[in-house]
Amino acid sequence: MKGIRRLAQELDISIGTVSRALNGKPDVNEQTRKRVLEAAAAMGYVPNQAGRALRKGSTGVIGFMMQSGSQITGEGDVFFMSVFDGVQTVCARHQLDLVVLLCASEDDPDAYLQRVVDRGFVDGLIISATKRHDHRIDFLSQRGVPFIALGRSLTDAGHPWFDLDFEGMAETGVDRLVAKGHRRIGIFAPMDDTNLGYIFIEHYRAALERHGIAFNPDFIFRAHPNDRGGHQIGERIAAMPPDQRPTGFILTNEMMTVGLYRGLYDSGLQPGKDFAVMGRDSPQAHYLTPKLTCFHLSLRDLGIALAESLLATMPDFSGDYPLGVVRKVLPLQLIEGDSDCPAPPEG
Amino acid sequence: MKGIRRLAQELDISIGTVSRALNGKPDVNEQTRKRVLEAAAAMGYVPNQAGRALRKGSTGVIGFMMQSGSQITGEGDVFFMSVFDGVQTVCARHQLDLVVLLCASEDDPDAYLQRVVDRGFVDGLIISATKRHDHRIDFLSQRGVPFIALGRSLTDAGHPWFDLDFEGMAETGVDRLVAKGHRRIGIFAPMDDTNLGYIFIEHYRAALERHGIAFNPDFIFRAHPNDRGGHQIGERIAAMPPDQRPTGFILTNEMMTVGLYRGLYDSGLQPGKDFAVMGRDSPQAHYLTPKLTCFHLSLRDLGIALAESLLATMPDFSGDYPLGVVRKVLPLQLIEGDSDCPAPPEG
Repeated sequence: MKGIRRLAQELDISIGTVSRALNGKPDVNEQTRKRVLEAAAAMGYVPNQAGRALRKGSTGVIGFMMQSGSQITGEGDVFFMSVFDGVQTVCARHQLDLVVLLCASEDDPDAYLQRVVDRGFVDGLIISATKRHDHRIDFLSQRGVPFIALGRSLTDAGHPWFDLDFEGMAETGVDRLVAKGHRRIGIFAPMDDTNLGYIFIEHYRAALERHGIAFNPDFIFRAHPNDRGGHQIGERIAAMPPDQRPTGFILTNEMMTVGLYRGLYDSGLQPGKDFAVMGRDSPQAHYLTPKLTCFHLSLRDLGIALAESLLATMPDFSGDYPLGVVRKVLPLQLIEGDSDCPAPPEG
Repeated sequence: MKGIRRLAQELDISIGTVSRALNGKPDVNEQTRKRVLEAAAAMGYVPNQAGRALRKGSTGVIGFMMQSGSQITGEGDVFFMSVFDGVQTVCARHQLDLVVLLCASEDDPDAYLQRVVDRGFVDGLIISATKRHDHRIDFLSQRGVPFIALGRSLTDAGHPWFDLDFEGMAETGVDRLVAKGHRRIGIFAPMDDTNLGYIFIEHYRAALERHGIAFNPDFIFRAHPNDRGGHQIGERIAAMPPDQRPTGFILTNEMMTVGLYRGLYDSGLQPGKDFAVMGRDSPQAHYLTPKLTCFHLSLRDLGIALAESLLATMPDFSGDYPLGVVRKVLPLQLIEGDSDCPAPPEG
């Protein structure tokens, strides 16, 4: 872009014309094309993908930016791969390819995204791990790159987004556990400023208040979103004095459930008997004993919805998806299992 | 490339010079540059990333091609994310970014790879799901794209590769189960022509022969490499007449173990008591009861080795990694658990 802009200024013609000339489009007169190419050569301009991407739909690639790293996906992933499956279903209709842009957790997501956009090999982007305040949203909006966010943010560029109904999970979870006699309910929260943590805590707190239960910050358990994190939470709960620890738990992360179960078992607490657990559905959850009471969402359908709503904002595809700007909280379905037992009598 | 080649022919100058001219490199004389740019404009040549990639190290992106789809990664992944973590560690040293190229299982991997290369946004490639005969190897070699394969192939372009020691797994697994009295040993094999299936079956068969045990094709269980596939194998084994079914099993896929355990349990066979299981290590395996006897490999280290060996073949980085062409089978470590019980007396 920078190069094209300088060229356009130097030649006093529009950026669009410079781009069309560089890209060999037929609707530029020969004289202009020559001037552009010569000026480009003179200033050592490297025609890059960013220039190409000015033509809409030019790269045929949709990017999905996700966080990775040993603390996050280093132990595996049971969320994104299913979402990708849905995104690919939509991409396949249009001969688009999906590439996954892995931003290491140690890397700065803003700088990473800028590199991706500067390389210009994606026509559109899906971003995830959306933060409470997310610079990526402003950046993509300013650069005119079509994108959709998985996750809400306080940063609002009028952009499309999808999110899971974390408020519904908090309310249904608290209501259900309170109805079973629980007054001390623990929850998980991420260690970073991913927005879902804020949303969940806020609505968990409001739901407790509705039931006249005081909020206790000690019942918010922060950990890495993986098996080990779940295991640590189980151990931490078991290590608390029995009359002060939670008697039930709502876990919004699907990678941690098996670890939480094991952490409880290893510490002498039996999920579904001594301690109530509610979690998120995942292939692994189907094999847990006792059966996990969990919130279900078709991740493949989420992927399809994300991709269709992204394409709805891209001129080359919006005819197929006349959805406008989609901003939607997706409800989750409660699947009843046996893991959310009543509170123990002394609880 | 095609465009550049045509330009080079038309102008009767080398492809390299055409590329350098188009890319604004200083080492092209002004006269030549003008000729190239004008000819490019005249023939409507679109300068693409493939042209840029002629300059080594020009995109700053390493691609990792993997298969995806509802049958494969649609249920999650506990292998690649850890490998990516290692690859990223190496990429970070050189300000390279890793992108994951998801080839849907319904898509033709050869056509997919060609699109990726034509788009030219990767400097080097790691390919996986390597097939017994793999066209991608010839293609990448012919196109001069630096690459490394995860998995051996009969297709040999003198290219670097890493593979897991499937022969070691077969031999150690069979030896160990035979020593515990097993004569009917089942194994898993993929449903497609991924080479690891062939290697494992071949060495499993050889190991049986060493022990004077006849090979029984009914003991090769093909399934999708996911939880459900593992579950189905468990059910299929349990449905066989007790005196004809395997008494032990070697599972080379880490995504299937939890399902296999549950499939056995659900059908009334208790792993580690009625039926011996050996598998692959994974975060999930740590939480299984009984503890899985498994083969372990640091996937992060595998990722590091893959990335370093790829960079060793790329001129911009080979100085840092004077490894030459690496072709290596990585040994796995046996971790003893309680899942590989002796054969039942009647077995």
